[in-house]
Amino acid sequence: MNENYNLRKKVPLVHCITNYVTVNDVANILLACGGSPIMADDLAEVSQITAISSALVINIGTLNARTVESMIKAGKTANEKGIPVVLDPVGAGASTLRNETVSRLLKEIKFTVIRGNMSEISYIAGLKVATRGVDSNESDNKNDSLSVAIAVAKSHACVAAITGAIDVITDGKKVAKIANGVPLMSKVTGTGCMLSAVIGAYIGANSDTYSATVKAVASMGIAGELAYERTKDIGTGNFHIAIIDEMSKLSDESIDKVAKIDEKNY
Amino acid sequence: MNENYNLRKKVPLVHCITNYVTVNDVANILLACGGSPIMADDLAEVSQITAISSALVINIGTLNARTVESMIKAGKTANEKGIPVVLDPVGAGASTLRNETVSRLLKEIKFTVIRGNMSEISYIAGLKVATRGVDSNESDNKNDSLSVAIAVAKSHACVAAITGAIDVITDGKKVAKIANGVPLMSKVTGTGCMLSAVIGAYIGANSDTYSATVKAVASMGIAGELAYERTKDIGTGNFHIAIIDEMSKLSDESIDKVAKIDEKNY
Amino acid sequence: MNENYNLRKKVPLVHCITNYVTVNDVANILLACGGSPIMADDLAEVSQITAISSALVINIGTLNARTVESMIKAGKTANEKGIPVVLDPVGAGASTLRNETVSRLLKEIKFTVIRGNMSEISYIAGLKVATRGVDSNESDNKNDSLSVAIAVAKSHACVAAITGAIDVITDGKKVAKIANGVPLMSKVTGTGCMLSAVIGAYIGANSDTYSATVKAVASMGIAGELAYERTKDIGTGNFHIAIIDEMSKLSDESIDKVAKIDEKNY
Repeated sequence: MNENYNLRKKVPLVHCITNYVTVNDVANILLACGGSPIMADDLAEVSQITAISSALVINIGTLNARTVESMIKAGKTANEKGIPVVLDPVGAGASTLRNETVSRLLKEIKFTVIRGNMSEISYIAGLKVATRGVDSNESDNKNDSLSVAIAVAKSHACVAAITGAIDVITDGKKVAKIANGVPLMSKVTGTGCMLSAVIGAYIGANSDTYSATVKAVASMGIAGELAYERTKDIGTGNFHIAIIDEMSKLSDESIDKVAKIDEKNY
Repeated sequence: MNENYNLRKKVPLVHCITNYVTVNDVANILLACGGSPIMADDLAEVSQITAISSALVINIGTLNARTVESMIKAGKTANEKGIPVVLDPVGAGASTLRNETVSRLLKEIKFTVIRGNMSEISYIAGLKVATRGVDSNESDNKNDSLSVAIAVAKSHACVAAITGAIDVITDGKKVAKIANGVPLMSKVTGTGCMLSAVIGAYIGANSDTYSATVKAVASMGIAGELAYERTKDIGTGNFHIAIIDEMSKLSDESIDKVAKIDEKNY
Repeated sequence: MNENYNLRKKVPLVHCITNYVTVNDVANILLACGGSPIMADDLAEVSQITAISSALVINIGTLNARTVESMIKAGKTANEKGIPVVLDPVGAGASTLRNETVSRLLKEIKFTVIRGNMSEISYIAGLKVATRGVDSNESDNKNDSLSVAIAVAKSHACVAAITGAIDVITDGKKVAKIANGVPLMSKVTGTGCMLSAVIGAYIGANSDTYSATVKAVASMGIAGELAYERTKDIGTGNFHIAIIDEMSKLSDESIDKVAKIDEKNY
């Protein structure tokens, strides 16, 4: 890539309406990558908060009737003001509430990036999915992640990112497959939520959405690899903390040096 | 014990309606012990989420009017479908809202396991308690934990677990006293919440509720001991993280090797 | 100072109505400094919880329509019962909801201590502020922190604390400037929230509010410095955890030894 995204200079403010399970990690990874987090979910303030932000990240991990309305309102404000919006459809396919909320969000808001695991993005693609809660379960899904991602990117005119053993990012034409990351990341809650927020920071600070998303996904995988090297014999508690450590030490250059990105045009 | 609970093979999905203080640790300790967490608290989805789960854990740590209704609904679904339910009555005795909620939960839901500290379980046993917030305060309570646990197990036809310096677990007949754990665990918020979730994983994956609860309680105490060995001179921040580390490395065999369990029949 | 605050003997119970982003760290830093946390935000129980506590901490980081009412009710109970109350006006100036809530809180509740960054306290002082979300942005504010803090302390008859590169604490007459702390603390979310809670513990256990606040602010800066020494080459994940480690090892004596406090009367 050899491009400079300069998050540490631009310090994009990222408004997150996100779940209460991983919200602390989301805030800390945003600070670690060079962004600045702001969490706000009351209907009375979300438009004002989105309006001062560089990006909005909507994560439905612990959605409820109150916060869904805030998500819609914030998303509409972002669209009106040309602020990029990321959707993390946590657990899509697992309940009617999640499914209906995802449908409503996709109908009322134009998303810039949609990121999820194979189950979640397959659900958005309209495919039958075998979901097992909020965690990724790649082996249950027979679909091919490349075709699913392309379908979602085209039908929603966005960048779609499916993360798993191999991450797939596409704008419907260009496709990047990223081989960074380690399986142990699935043993820490919130690595997906954190990545969605990091994508928010990258696209909030850079206009090339596809390239910025690729860089963000690569950075998270690399942070996971470096954390794993240091902590694999210690346990998942320290692995979790080390992911944030490593993110705080990455630079555009150090990411490019070890990123395993395979790009093609379709 | 020498029994195999095989959490890492069975990967029980545990639905938690839990407090926002310790929810990240609860999710990470579930992953560390071999389970899989799902947090969902909206009335519109809790029944569906419980229905796909192996166990439900209800923790009233930061209850509110909205989530209490979700707890009731999820609990009823669990009872209808034969899914085991754990109650963690955080702060029972500390406010009328907590007391009335615990009474209502116990009236409307059949719990499989009730776990708390001496104050909380004494409150459930109908004893006068000197509570001081949500933290354990053993010295204020003159009652004997064994008789309190047996009373609760019998009156609610469940397994009752009182955790403290010596943990007591009973189904009303069999009793286990467990001497694992270290006092410093009370200087990390959420070790009780984490344990309740781990119990959910064990009973979600195994039909012998009493034995599974004993194993779960022992595993948490052992994780605390091993974490203490590594971090006692470093501080409570690293001790906290190390508890999750150690849980992620335990196995049925390693637990059995160091568990200090004294079992009797009454 | 050479005064003994004895938090570890007194173990003040601190009722926090606080944001869900940093609540786990707030609870753990309270335990680490010698206090005991209780988080409760339902309107039906906040008065009872405040009434058994040594201090109340109100933090508007993720305020919503429901919790604002709980803040007001708890604050009134604290005032009636003579329990000290800390206000952390997170993000004041960033949205109408935050501004109106701060105004209402200041009108209906008498605060013992108000702590925030320069933007937030400037907003309370009625000054025009350039806010950028919830994070401190000292360079955007041309005002002098000493005069801002004195103005707030006088107009609200409280101790005001502005934290930044140099912390300023004043009761309107006495002023302390504290030079402890490291810039990296701004790269961990919640160091301000944690400090507000620690102030709650100190003023809950000691009657001299000004001195107790000075000691609390110094302790947090020192914990940050010691954490930085150990983790500066590791990353912000471990730095975060080390702050809690170091707080858990501080004593009245060790704080006094390295505190950099410059006190004057105005």
